[in-house]
Amino acid sequence: MGGDRAPAAIVEGAVLASGEGLASGLVLVGDKGAIEAELKKHGNGSGIEVVHATQVVEMHESPAESLRKKKDSSIVRAVKLLKTGEVSAVISAGNTGAFVAAATLFARTLKGIHRPGIAAPLPNPSGGISLLIDVGANIFCKPLHLVHYGIMAASYAKHVLGIAEPKVGLVNIGEESEKGTELIKETNALFEKTDLNYVGNVEGQDIYKGVADIFVAEGVLGNTILKVSEGLGEMIFRYLTGWFTKTGAMENEAVKGAMGTLYSMVDYAEYGGAPLLGISGLCIICHGRSDAKAITNAVRVATRYATEGVHDKIAEQIVTFENDASAAGKEIPSV
Amino acid sequence: MGGDRAPAAIVEGAVLASGEGLASGLVLVGDKGAIEAELKKHGNGSGIEVVHATQVVEMHESPAESLRKKKDSSIVRAVKLLKTGEVSAVISAGNTGAFVAAATLFARTLKGIHRPGIAAPLPNPSGGISLLIDVGANIFCKPLHLVHYGIMAASYAKHVLGIAEPKVGLVNIGEESEKGTELIKETNALFEKTDLNYVGNVEGQDIYKGVADIFVAEGVLGNTILKVSEGLGEMIFRYLTGWFTKTGAMENEAVKGAMGTLYSMVDYAEYGGAPLLGISGLCIICHGRSDAKAITNAVRVATRYATEGVHDKIAEQIVTFENDASAAGKEIPSV
Repeated sequence: MGGDRAPAAIVEGAVLASGEGLASGLVLVGDKGAIEAELKKHGNGSGIEVVHATQVVEMHESPAESLRKKKDSSIVRAVKLLKTGEVSAVISAGNTGAFVAAATLFARTLKGIHRPGIAAPLPNPSGGISLLIDVGANIFCKPLHLVHYGIMAASYAKHVLGIAEPKVGLVNIGEESEKGTELIKETNALFEKTDLNYVGNVEGQDIYKGVADIFVAEGVLGNTILKVSEGLGEMIFRYLTGWFTKTGAMENEAVKGAMGTLYSMVDYAEYGGAPLLGISGLCIICHGRSDAKAITNAVRVATRYATEGVHDKIAEQIVTFENDASAAGKEIPSV
Repeated sequence: MGGDRAPAAIVEGAVLASGEGLASGLVLVGDKGAIEAELKKHGNGSGIEVVHATQVVEMHESPAESLRKKKDSSIVRAVKLLKTGEVSAVISAGNTGAFVAAATLFARTLKGIHRPGIAAPLPNPSGGISLLIDVGANIFCKPLHLVHYGIMAASYAKHVLGIAEPKVGLVNIGEESEKGTELIKETNALFEKTDLNYVGNVEGQDIYKGVADIFVAEGVLGNTILKVSEGLGEMIFRYLTGWFTKTGAMENEAVKGAMGTLYSMVDYAEYGGAPLLGISGLCIICHGRSDAKAITNAVRVATRYATEGVHDKIAEQIVTFENDASAAGKEIPSV
């Protein structure tokens, strides 16, 4: 029920995913009447189950308040299906804050994880994607939270995105280890103790130079990086589209093609959503603007996550990090 | 002597500025022999004075160490001319950290200002520029530092950039006043007490939507916003240039023109440098890549700053803010 194009685009995306056999089972959670009306437009979407929820959290509602007041919202219902194990993943294009709050409150966090983090996909110069974690789930970060983000995102990148040895970088104001705030300096030192493919501190411009696959930042910084990228990408896209349309250059097939690619590069709805990592079960946060294709992509990602057992692999990594560090007598700060 | 193209581009920029009558006097500080050799290429640059300095701070040298070891570097020499009042402004395309450290150490800060901040120009959708402060001078920010940045940048925008009533926004993870870290929440409350045209919290994407003229952020956040923008702009520019060149679309005049405009939009060397605000006298930090045109632009900005008496206007604003608040019995936190 959440997102700018719900429920139409969500239902259409689910039907497409079902048609492509992307999941062994799909459940749509929300207003039964509205969902079934949409399903009818697509031949009733055979094999898709509908779970009724009487309430909807609106896009700009306060997360905490919405959870208190709307106990039968589609997002709470969906997360509870995750908790009981009836589903392996929940996908939503709705209110991100409410989704994260519901997941944190009603699902369990992974063993050893104190704060889940959102890993947002970003374009990189080789045409692939890198992950930026955290983009806003946690604005009161401790060094261990950030290192856990790196471990979880690297595991996700390896097993879901197929990146062999993901390089992990920590966003900072400079590359040198003595640069930055206390949080960043301590996090950098702690990352050195992991067996990650850690490349050290990176600066903002490095995110779009492909120097790492995973970029770790605390929530305010990560959120701003994501949104600044979105804003600048849109401004450039609009400027060029306006200019090319006015001058007739858009008639040129090469120009049209380039603008199409640029659009998918700067349109964060294209990437199949951002996983909330650290929850027992997968939550995929889709952009509010998500269309059917974006939802289908998210289903593909969720299925891959479930079938590859990424969940258990992430949990193992967290335990391994703690055990290795403790065996080596290294101090892992408590949080 | 600093910057990727020094001293050639710096000398050429000074000669151009002198030719256009942009400053009542210009002083080039650095290796006398190298500077005079460059000046010779441009008819000796009549009216340009040369002050000899035997040392150069390299681009990646540690600022603190460079100041300790190189007491006769061009940057230290230049800042000392500012301190003694022999010049009204110092322009450098060299090591930013060393420049800021030298300015903080050898020049005085403005009365009431505890931490100077760098205001970097960013493109906005209406083709003008907005200012982002601070992009890295101060990573240990208190609310009052951030409010002073807003006051100083608004005054600079008004008197140097000609923006009538500059709108000031505070970069945050959300627009609501209860969002964000303690630093951001306290700063937001303090901004409400100023007589600035304060628009409240803004998110990353708003920076490129023209919702404000001044964007205030602590140093790590501001630095990352600037560098992420630079990196993404470059990635998009390179992708499009490659594609348009390969397909021959670059032959189209409209495409060529658009790429030229895009280049100036994303090339931060175009904007005439970033002022370090809060110092007694003006320091303009130019991009390391600065060409002659960028240096000329910086001279134009510096002259405008000096002739408009912006310095005194900023100092007045700071005093007014303190007096107003104290008269109204409002508490201004000490730092």
